[in-house]
Amino acid sequence: MIYADNAATTRMSEAAIHTMVSLAQETWGNPSSLYTTGQRAKEVLEEARSAVAAAIGAEPREILFTSGGSEADNQAIRSAAELGKKKGKTHIISTAFEHHAVLHTLKKLESEGFTVTLLPVHENGLVVPEEVEAAITDETALVTVMFANNEIGTIQPIREIGAICRARGVLFHTDAVQAVGHLPIDVMLDNIDLLSASAHKFHGPKGVGFLYARKGIRLTNLIEGGAQERGRRAGTENVPGIGAMATALTEAAAGMSESAKRLSALRDRLIAGLSEIPHSALNGDATKRLPSNVNFCFEGIEGESLLLLLDDRGIAASSGSACTSGSLDPSHVLLAIGRVHDVAHGSLRLSIGDDITEADVEYIIKNVKEVVEYLRGFSPIWRDLVNGKKAFIL
Amino acid sequence: MIYADNAATTRMSEAAIHTMVSLAQETWGNPSSLYTTGQRAKEVLEEARSAVAAAIGAEPREILFTSGGSEADNQAIRSAAELGKKKGKTHIISTAFEHHAVLHTLKKLESEGFTVTLLPVHENGLVVPEEVEAAITDETALVTVMFANNEIGTIQPIREIGAICRARGVLFHTDAVQAVGHLPIDVMLDNIDLLSASAHKFHGPKGVGFLYARKGIRLTNLIEGGAQERGRRAGTENVPGIGAMATALTEAAAGMSESAKRLSALRDRLIAGLSEIPHSALNGDATKRLPSNVNFCFEGIEGESLLLLLDDRGIAASSGSACTSGSLDPSHVLLAIGRVHDVAHGSLRLSIGDDITEADVEYIIKNVKEVVEYLRGFSPIWRDLVNGKKAFIL
Repeated sequence: MIYADNAATTRMSEAAIHTMVSLAQETWGNPSSLYTTGQRAKEVLEEARSAVAAAIGAEPREILFTSGGSEADNQAIRSAAELGKKKGKTHIISTAFEHHAVLHTLKKLESEGFTVTLLPVHENGLVVPEEVEAAITDETALVTVMFANNEIGTIQPIREIGAICRARGVLFHTDAVQAVGHLPIDVMLDNIDLLSASAHKFHGPKGVGFLYARKGIRLTNLIEGGAQERGRRAGTENVPGIGAMATALTEAAAGMSESAKRLSALRDRLIAGLSEIPHSALNGDATKRLPSNVNFCFEGIEGESLLLLLDDRGIAASSGSACTSGSLDPSHVLLAIGRVHDVAHGSLRLSIGDDITEADVEYIIKNVKEVVEYLRGFSPIWRDLVNGKKAFIL
Repeated sequence: MIYADNAATTRMSEAAIHTMVSLAQETWGNPSSLYTTGQRAKEVLEEARSAVAAAIGAEPREILFTSGGSEADNQAIRSAAELGKKKGKTHIISTAFEHHAVLHTLKKLESEGFTVTLLPVHENGLVVPEEVEAAITDETALVTVMFANNEIGTIQPIREIGAICRARGVLFHTDAVQAVGHLPIDVMLDNIDLLSASAHKFHGPKGVGFLYARKGIRLTNLIEGGAQERGRRAGTENVPGIGAMATALTEAAAGMSESAKRLSALRDRLIAGLSEIPHSALNGDATKRLPSNVNFCFEGIEGESLLLLLDDRGIAASSGSACTSGSLDPSHVLLAIGRVHDVAHGSLRLSIGDDITEADVEYIIKNVKEVVEYLRGFSPIWRDLVNGKKAFIL
C-alpha cells in the first residue's frame, strides 16, 4: 500500500512505539505516587514536557498534556473565551475553514452569547493579516487561526497575525495540529499565546496531544477532578503515550528540514503530474502549503468513487478531512476557497510522508489519471459538460 | 518490589500490551477513512466496543470511548445536569466521599446554579439506600454514587440505589472506576443509567476509558469537533489504546471470580495481621469492600513517612488517592467516615493485585508493624498519647 493520507493520521515511528512499550512495561507507576516507581514516572513525564516545549520554543510549564488536538482546541478556545468574558469581551475572530474542533466550539460559544467573525480565506486559502487587523474591535477576546489547513495544506501568515494580536492586546490561538513536527514553530517569535497539537499527526500515538499556553494565561478546565497538570487537566497522566509523543516529536524536529525539502519536490511533481488531467485544479496556494499536501478538484467525478478505486490499486488517500467522512456535504474548506458544490465533491487529498518514493509518486499520478478518466466515462455530469449542456468551471 | 497500589494504577497485562503494539504497527489507519486500512481500524474499534459492552451487560452503541475515568465522570454528570435543567430539575444527589472527578464537577455545577446534596457514608463507608430515597425531590436530576470507593474500597448497594432512582424517574450514574474488571457488573440488573470506567485500573492502558450511557440518554459533548463516537466525543479514536482496553477487560472478566476469591483471602489475612498493631483501625466495612483493598489508620504517625519507609523496604503503597498526593489536607474520604484529622493523617492503603503472593502478604505485615513501631518511637504525638497528655482515639 502507498499511504498518502498522513494528514488523517500517521504510522507511529518504531522509536515512538519502543518508548511507549518500554514505559508501559517498566515505568507504569502513577506519577502522583510517592514511591520510587511513581516518582520515576513523574520524571519521565517532566522529561517529555521539556522535550515537547523545546520543540516549539516554549517553557516546560507552558505545556499541558491532553488526549489530543480536539481537546486542546476546545480547552484553548474555552479558556480564552472565559478570560475575555470576565473583561466584557465576547467577540472572537476565526476563519471559515478551521477544523471542526474549532468551528463547533465557536458555535457553542455563539449559543452562549459570544459573537464570532469568520474571516474569508480567499481563493488561495490564505488569511490576509490586514483583514484580521480590521476585524479586531475593543470587544475581541480571541483570534484563532489554524497554522496549516488540514485539507488544502495552506500555511497561514501566523507570525504577522500574532504580531497584530499582540499589538492590539488580543489573545491569539492557533490550531497547529497539521504543523507541529512538520514546520518550524517558535511560539515566541511567532507571537503565539495558545497552540494545539496532536501526536498522531507526527508519528506519535493516538489519544495524546498537548496545549501550549503562554505563562500567565489561566486555563479553564474541560475535565475536572484530580490535581494533575497543575490542576488544569484531571486524570492519571498517560505516561507511555506522552513519552512516545515526545520521542516522535524529537525525531520529527530533527528530520524536519531534510524531510520538507524532499517532500516539497515530490509534492510539486504530484501537482505537475495531476495538473495534466484536463479540467482539474489545485486547491490552495501552490507554494504556501505543507510540503506533504496536494489537494485537487477534478470536474465531473465523485471523490468517494475515486478513493475506493484508488484503494483497489493500493493507494490510500482521502477527499478531505477524515473527521467528516461519511458526511454527504461537500468540504467546508473547499467551499471557503470558492469551489462550488459540484466541483468540491470531486476532490482528492494526497498527504505524503517520508516513506514515499519517487516511484510511488509516479504510480499515484498514473493511477489517478486512469481512474479519473475511467470515472468520467460513465459520469452523467461529465457527459453534460462534454456535450455543452453544462459549462466547465475548471 | 511488592506493588500494593493497584487502586492508583495497574501494570498493563502482556496481552493488552501486545494488542496495543500490534494495532499501532498494523491497524494504525484512521477509523474514519474509507480505504481498507481505515476500515480495518473501524472494525477493530467496533469489536472493542462490543467486548466492552459485553463485560457490563450493555449494548455496543451504549459505550462511548473517552480518555479515561475522569473525562467519563465529567461527561456523565454534565449530561445528566443539562438534561435535568431542560426540565427545570437542578438538584443532584451524591455522597461525601466521591472521587474528585465527581465532586469538583458538582462544585462547578453549584456555581452554575445547581444544588447538591452530599449524603453521609457513615462509619462503615456505606450509603444507606433509604437515605438516597429520602433525599430525592421533584427537582432531582441525578443521583451519582460511586460503585466502590477508591480509598477504602467499600462497595455500595448500587442495585438498590439504582432501583430507587428508576422508580422515582431520576437518572443514576455510578463512578465504577474501581469496580469495572474487579466486580461483577450488569448495568441492566443493577439499574444503572450512566457508568464511568478507566482502563488503567484493570491492567489496560492509561489515557483510555469509557462511558456507558443507557440508550436514549442524550450526552452533552465535553469535546466538540469531528463526528467520531456518534458525534458525542470528537477526536481521532485511539484505536490501539481502545483495543488494548478491550483485551484487558476481557481478561479481567474471565479471571474475575477466581481472582476475587484469592485476593479476598489475602486481604483478610492483611487485615488480621495489621489489626495486631496497637491503636490501629481498619477503615471501611470489613466485608463489603473490594477483594483488593485494605485501608488502615495508625494513631500517632504520619502516613507519608510510613510510605517512604515502606518504599525503602520494597513495598509500594499509598496513603489514599494518588490524585491528591502532595496535598497536606487529610483524605476527604477518611473525614467522611468520621476519622478526625490527626488519625486520618496516619493512613495506609494497600491495594493488591493478582501477582501478589502469600509470602508478600506476610512480608507486608511484618514490615508495616516494624515501620509503624519505628515511627512511633520518635513521634511527639505518640509520646503525648502514651504519656496520657492526649487521649487515644483508636
